[in-house]
Amino acid sequence: MNNIIQTSLHSIQKPSQEKLQEARDYVNSLTKPIGSLGKLEDLAIQLSGITNQLYPEVSRPGIVVFAADHGISDMGVSAYPKEVTAQMVHNFLNGGAAINVFSKQINALLKIVDIGVAVDINHEKLLQKKVKYGTNNYAFENAMTEDEVYQAIIIGMEMVEHIINDGANCIILGEMGIGNTATASAIVSVITDSPVEEVVGLGTGISEEERKKKVTVIMNAIKDRKPKQKNAIDILSKVGGLEIAGMTGAMIKAAERRIPVILDGFISTSAALLAVLLDEKINDYLIAGHMSKEQGHSRALSFLNKSPLLDLDLRLGEGTGAALSYPLLKAATNMMKEMETFKSANIANKRLSSK
Amino acid sequence: MNNIIQTSLHSIQKPSQEKLQEARDYVNSLTKPIGSLGKLEDLAIQLSGITNQLYPEVSRPGIVVFAADHGISDMGVSAYPKEVTAQMVHNFLNGGAAINVFSKQINALLKIVDIGVAVDINHEKLLQKKVKYGTNNYAFENAMTEDEVYQAIIIGMEMVEHIINDGANCIILGEMGIGNTATASAIVSVITDSPVEEVVGLGTGISEEERKKKVTVIMNAIKDRKPKQKNAIDILSKVGGLEIAGMTGAMIKAAERRIPVILDGFISTSAALLAVLLDEKINDYLIAGHMSKEQGHSRALSFLNKSPLLDLDLRLGEGTGAALSYPLLKAATNMMKEMETFKSANIANKRLSSK
Repeated sequence: MNNIIQTSLHSIQKPSQEKLQEARDYVNSLTKPIGSLGKLEDLAIQLSGITNQLYPEVSRPGIVVFAADHGISDMGVSAYPKEVTAQMVHNFLNGGAAINVFSKQINALLKIVDIGVAVDINHEKLLQKKVKYGTNNYAFENAMTEDEVYQAIIIGMEMVEHIINDGANCIILGEMGIGNTATASAIVSVITDSPVEEVVGLGTGISEEERKKKVTVIMNAIKDRKPKQKNAIDILSKVGGLEIAGMTGAMIKAAERRIPVILDGFISTSAALLAVLLDEKINDYLIAGHMSKEQGHSRALSFLNKSPLLDLDLRLGEGTGAALSYPLLKAATNMMKEMETFKSANIANKRLSSK
Repeated sequence: MNNIIQTSLHSIQKPSQEKLQEARDYVNSLTKPIGSLGKLEDLAIQLSGITNQLYPEVSRPGIVVFAADHGISDMGVSAYPKEVTAQMVHNFLNGGAAINVFSKQINALLKIVDIGVAVDINHEKLLQKKVKYGTNNYAFENAMTEDEVYQAIIIGMEMVEHIINDGANCIILGEMGIGNTATASAIVSVITDSPVEEVVGLGTGISEEERKKKVTVIMNAIKDRKPKQKNAIDILSKVGGLEIAGMTGAMIKAAERRIPVILDGFISTSAALLAVLLDEKINDYLIAGHMSKEQGHSRALSFLNKSPLLDLDLRLGEGTGAALSYPLLKAATNMMKEMETFKSANIANKRLSSK
């Protein structure tokens, strides 16, 4: 294992059990029936544990969108041609995509990273971190070398380091990469030991017939490449993606810095499975933003034992579902900071009443 | 029927079918796979229909919280004593309740209305619109006269008229009233023709034994008062609540003014059932903010054929679930206003490609 990554992994701490208990007690003292704010209460408590603050400061989201191409897209696994990756990167840079709109709404810092697009893109706002011109087609050979996996992970770590230094205290990870639901399906199938058939969905909108072909392509690739179920680096090298490796690195760094990460959909959750393979403590720092319509997503979230905040039948990626869920994190932290307690507001609490 | 109410009901229009189709076509031209923003797309289209604008302006929420007491609370149907209604109204007015926190987060106009609290409350920020000092105990007599129902509905209409004139273009309705889940259960049971047993939940946190008692109290009340299933005014008069009547009026006025209303939980949805009995066109103007943990809520939403935006196990009321869902309305309208189309961004659209 690479030294930089290893050092970061060793620095990750478990959220404090005392802080979690303190937060739970405090939530129960607020002017509302106990438990009546449901999942928002659990979220507030988790954020207290992550940040080690009773009043967690999760006020400035930072969104990092990793873009890369996939050799596997040559096998016809996507509804869109490969050129759309670069075209959509231009759209992000020019501010016209869904993630731009939702990023602006939540006043997020937004960084677009070329970690492996198949063509060169020139734009002053683009972070040029290309590891290679798209992965190799893992139907025929490994997607990338282990050294390339390390490079991509370290880029992800650096991007999060920078955005935290720029002021972000909550990380949202997005991606763009034609063919990447195929790659995420391979990763989720291997790690959760699920049949490929059960984790492959319709991606950006293929037909049922095309989906069957996609299943066959992925099954054959897994059979030929033989990724090791418990080895994240091996999986990434054999059937991974550069943007997925970048997101895995981003999660490592966020956990090290005690900053919450909101997962988006299927692709970012596949990166989360890889991160958790590297260190299961990372799971405590992850929040499931939404339930994607992509069918493998629920299986991946179950593996992480996460319940999503939103369920809106989204299947876009880019970080959009995570960005849409962010106001709920803000609400949870505002609840902690701004609500009165029964005592401070002088309200009868049924637990104290003679009833 | 009262004249003022009748006139308003007659002014309600159906959303324009042309605008709905125009909005759907426009959503499908945006730079994302068709349908990939799921329920957010449906929401945007609904908002276009409601406002009759392709780029619906739903930028300033106005929250009206109606507070009232319920005579039925004397039967021990709630976990909290009746005094908590007035105490929580003070908490709203002093800014310490959950609805204050979430209202501030979304920059909402917030009005607190005493439409029937059992005691006098003096506070400069309180809108004093008391119809009576709480409803009568409908275990023994009608909750209120039909004239009092009309008064409460008209107050709700006026409150919405005022908050729209102050700048609100999206209405969120909240309530506070110890005992009001019992009243909402009675209303939902009557209108949806559901067994009382199946719509009564745990309210603010009663035991299963107390819940059984609550079921019996409501069953007996319905048997004795005999509210008419299709008659909203009769139902409100016999087993209704003043804050519920106020919310019904608020929905009438919002629909007349073509302003969307976000429903909160079980109580506000019971008011929606009454509004839809008065004019089914009102249903087109309603958005289900969230799915409450209160068990009768899903039945009430099914009756309205609504799918909720959030499902966070909330059971607080006050308008909190609706306020938490508001950023999704904002995101839907921002999507319409700010996203590029495939054509404007010059991106390959699979429907146009030769694939």
